[in-house]
Amino acid sequence: MSGSKYAYVKGYELPDTILPNTYIVVRIDGRAFHRLSQEHSFVKPNDERALSLMDHAARDVMDEFKDVVLAFGESDEYSFLFRKSTAVYKRRHAKILTTVTSLFTSSYVFNWSRYLPEAPLKYPPSFDGRIVLYPSSQDVRDYFAWRQVDTHINNLYNTTFWALVQQGGESTTQAHQILKGTVSKAKQEILFSRFNINYNDTPERFRKGSVQVREEITANPEIDETSGKHRKTDLRVESRIVSHHCDIIKDDFWIARTHLLA
Amino acid sequence: MSGSKYAYVKGYELPDTILPNTYIVVRIDGRAFHRLSQEHSFVKPNDERALSLMDHAARDVMDEFKDVVLAFGESDEYSFLFRKSTAVYKRRHAKILTTVTSLFTSSYVFNWSRYLPEAPLKYPPSFDGRIVLYPSSQDVRDYFAWRQVDTHINNLYNTTFWALVQQGGESTTQAHQILKGTVSKAKQEILFSRFNINYNDTPERFRKGSVQVREEITANPEIDETSGKHRKTDLRVESRIVSHHCDIIKDDFWIARTHLLA
Amino acid sequence: MSGSKYAYVKGYELPDTILPNTYIVVRIDGRAFHRLSQEHSFVKPNDERALSLMDHAARDVMDEFKDVVLAFGESDEYSFLFRKSTAVYKRRHAKILTTVTSLFTSSYVFNWSRYLPEAPLKYPPSFDGRIVLYPSSQDVRDYFAWRQVDTHINNLYNTTFWALVQQGGESTTQAHQILKGTVSKAKQEILFSRFNINYNDTPERFRKGSVQVREEITANPEIDETSGKHRKTDLRVESRIVSHHCDIIKDDFWIARTHLLA
Amino acid sequence: MSGSKYAYVKGYELPDTILPNTYIVVRIDGRAFHRLSQEHSFVKPNDERALSLMDHAARDVMDEFKDVVLAFGESDEYSFLFRKSTAVYKRRHAKILTTVTSLFTSSYVFNWSRYLPEAPLKYPPSFDGRIVLYPSSQDVRDYFAWRQVDTHINNLYNTTFWALVQQGGESTTQAHQILKGTVSKAKQEILFSRFNINYNDTPERFRKGSVQVREEITANPEIDETSGKHRKTDLRVESRIVSHHCDIIKDDFWIARTHLLA
Repeated sequence: MSGSKYAYVKGYELPDTILPNTYIVVRIDGRAFHRLSQEHSFVKPNDERALSLMDHAARDVMDEFKDVVLAFGESDEYSFLFRKSTAVYKRRHAKILTTVTSLFTSSYVFNWSRYLPEAPLKYPPSFDGRIVLYPSSQDVRDYFAWRQVDTHINNLYNTTFWALVQQGGESTTQAHQILKGTVSKAKQEILFSRFNINYNDTPERFRKGSVQVREEITANPEIDETSGKHRKTDLRVESRIVSHHCDIIKDDFWIARTHLLA
Repeated sequence: MSGSKYAYVKGYELPDTILPNTYIVVRIDGRAFHRLSQEHSFVKPNDERALSLMDHAARDVMDEFKDVVLAFGESDEYSFLFRKSTAVYKRRHAKILTTVTSLFTSSYVFNWSRYLPEAPLKYPPSFDGRIVLYPSSQDVRDYFAWRQVDTHINNLYNTTFWALVQQGGESTTQAHQILKGTVSKAKQEILFSRFNINYNDTPERFRKGSVQVREEITANPEIDETSGKHRKTDLRVESRIVSHHCDIIKDDFWIARTHLLA
Repeated sequence: MSGSKYAYVKGYELPDTILPNTYIVVRIDGRAFHRLSQEHSFVKPNDERALSLMDHAARDVMDEFKDVVLAFGESDEYSFLFRKSTAVYKRRHAKILTTVTSLFTSSYVFNWSRYLPEAPLKYPPSFDGRIVLYPSSQDVRDYFAWRQVDTHINNLYNTTFWALVQQGGESTTQAHQILKGTVSKAKQEILFSRFNINYNDTPERFRKGSVQVREEITANPEIDETSGKHRKTDLRVESRIVSHHCDIIKDDFWIARTHLLA
Repeated sequence: MSGSKYAYVKGYELPDTILPNTYIVVRIDGRAFHRLSQEHSFVKPNDERALSLMDHAARDVMDEFKDVVLAFGESDEYSFLFRKSTAVYKRRHAKILTTVTSLFTSSYVFNWSRYLPEAPLKYPPSFDGRIVLYPSSQDVRDYFAWRQVDTHINNLYNTTFWALVQQGGESTTQAHQILKGTVSKAKQEILFSRFNINYNDTPERFRKGSVQVREEITANPEIDETSGKHRKTDLRVESRIVSHHCDIIKDDFWIARTHLLA
């Protein structure tokens, strides 16, 4: 008995190489996390434990994929930016996409009990993922700006909504009604006038999301005593992942980290 | 502040619809499971606990995706067959692929401690996945035959190899040397003559892999007393998942289950 | 000076292999043929010369591509069916698509003067093309049925419309108005009652379109005197292209030509 | 009879949108032009009439597609650059590819007799085409450099080869033998020492290929007497296509025409 008779079916596996020199963004999204958050009594509007768990899973992805230079997370979604020159898995679409999604999922489940020990996981949560390609650095900046604007809009809404419910004694229906059609300014006004909350003083983590950056560090280079120069072998570039909850819409963030889009 | 300025980046998400009327196979594979099996002391050549965990994760996928009618697992891989008419997620490639891969991964980690309580999971394991499309039912049959032949070849090799090492006192190097270039018959001969093992008496689970079938059951239809006919509302078709370790190469399996390829 | 420095750009040419074992249909459509027909005074509602030119170009495509077993043309469009096992150009999408489209275009221009000598070609006409894949033989039959139904619908409309204009003295606006919302039966009634035209007696070419079939002929096999069998070398299957204007919706056509979908 | 029953087959036409903000290059290549050149007695090593015909067909493509800003031709191939922001045909891959290929083919056949009146076209020539995407302007520059380097290499070889055959009395076999493995310098040396030909004095058309540029012209803007400014409506940018046989590898060409890569 030999496999050769059937091996022709392998010929149906078609190549799915990603265009070279293009930024690869993998975005994963929690599936049915509304239910997950209810079943495990997530704190509203933001559960810091759950967000920290997301961050942990994201760092595990970045530890595995050295070509992920930036990741941004909010709520139950996370976006990963691969440097445009990455040759990981020969840029095979499905391979990159599924490996990132699977590793993120695995880490999320594996580390759950560390972040939410009071709420044992009741069933296996899952994520979907997609790859979006961006040809230019401006596209990439606008992508992350898009996600951070989304973070802001959602968080302001949720913060006001839950203040109305938890502190204002409104029903969820009433709270929705009150907020319907309001602009940002009006929501901030409600927060301040009714609950004495200055939105800009709420935690940056909630307002800005999580920004995980691969920072490059030129490792501790010794000076050669004879030549007065660095020894070539010492000039390794090392990297470490640094977490921020900062603005990534304005120029400052990117100007300080030109290697991200290089 | 509005999201609209940046929302154009969503236009880079391109459609990835799968050709209609085509069988969709999702195959997931363990990443670096050689290391995983060593770090967690999997029994050689087959660890029934680990295989049962794979089966459990596969059933979780089938519970979620009613259009998966058949799944086949061996070692650290599993293949899922969607009926060719499936409209799940509007047949979006990445959505189907990542959700299956993520859910499988999640269930695997979530249920690990149930199957391997003696070997606490040390780090998050992950899987990659791919979609392969098959236009005809013969293609699909040959795909699963290809995987089951592979199961047989690998298992016979591994069974003989570990018999040589564990019972025969050979080093792994010697065992590889002994088996190099041997055909199936020769390996079976070694098993029988040196270890008194009749390969065909070893567990079917190891020789045939795991076959998970969605069996359709027409639910207990009552006869209407007046008309003498079934009540229309009773003619629900229900399904349940049944596990086998049986031959899926020969015709019998498929003839008995024509709905799988319908 | 060497090419190697720039040759990396060739790496941006990504593979585009078509799924094996799937029927490939290439459909080409005339671009702006409304204008072309006016500028060259095509006879209305059907110009037999122009249709014959289309047929000629289609046969040139079939002469070049032996794996095209069937072609169907109507008005300014033509569909070509490649046998599902074709390995032409290693099933590369763009290569197949552009070659068929280009050859059709070239033949159309090259042979124009032969079919419309009274109307010298004023400018270069062009076609667009697309590939559609069909996994099953039923899909393919329904595809061609779809095109032939379209032929019927358009031709009945146009025949009635131009009878109203050319013989009935209606303006084109009035003719459109008269036909608006009418079903087939009503149009046939107008043709018969006002113009004594029995639609079913109009030329089949116009009502059915053009069907070009590759018929297989087992070439002139001699019987070996000694063995009483055919000589193996004589059993060549040859093919020739036969034109029809026949029904391809009902079973008869396909039952008589099972090789088309084999 | 209605089309609706079969119209489902249209659902097999899958979207093929091209990634936004990416340069689109369409390259067409003559099929079997070796035979075409022999059957129609093309002058060797370069037939200016045939090259001019290619240029004409390319300009017809550029006249139709205003978003083609640059085209480069050599021998029997032509490359067309669409501006990266083009929205032509909603960036549908097959539509763009086939229309360009068909129009080029059509113009080539249509205009043949104008350029080669002494050699009536014997049969319909055809071209294949492909789309290659380039994300960055540097990629695009390197693509065109790659093609022009190719022009140089082929032309130098052919020029020397045919000098050896036509003027040197060598057989084609001998000529191949003489040139085998030679570098550029050696070929130029042969041309000069044996035939007194200074390669750099041969026509630029042959050495550099054909460069068709869409030049933008701000049309005749009148100054408003009152305001002293241009009238807004006069500031139309018009374009015309200009032919060159110039270097497109060095910076100069591109610096003078920054709009090409904008």
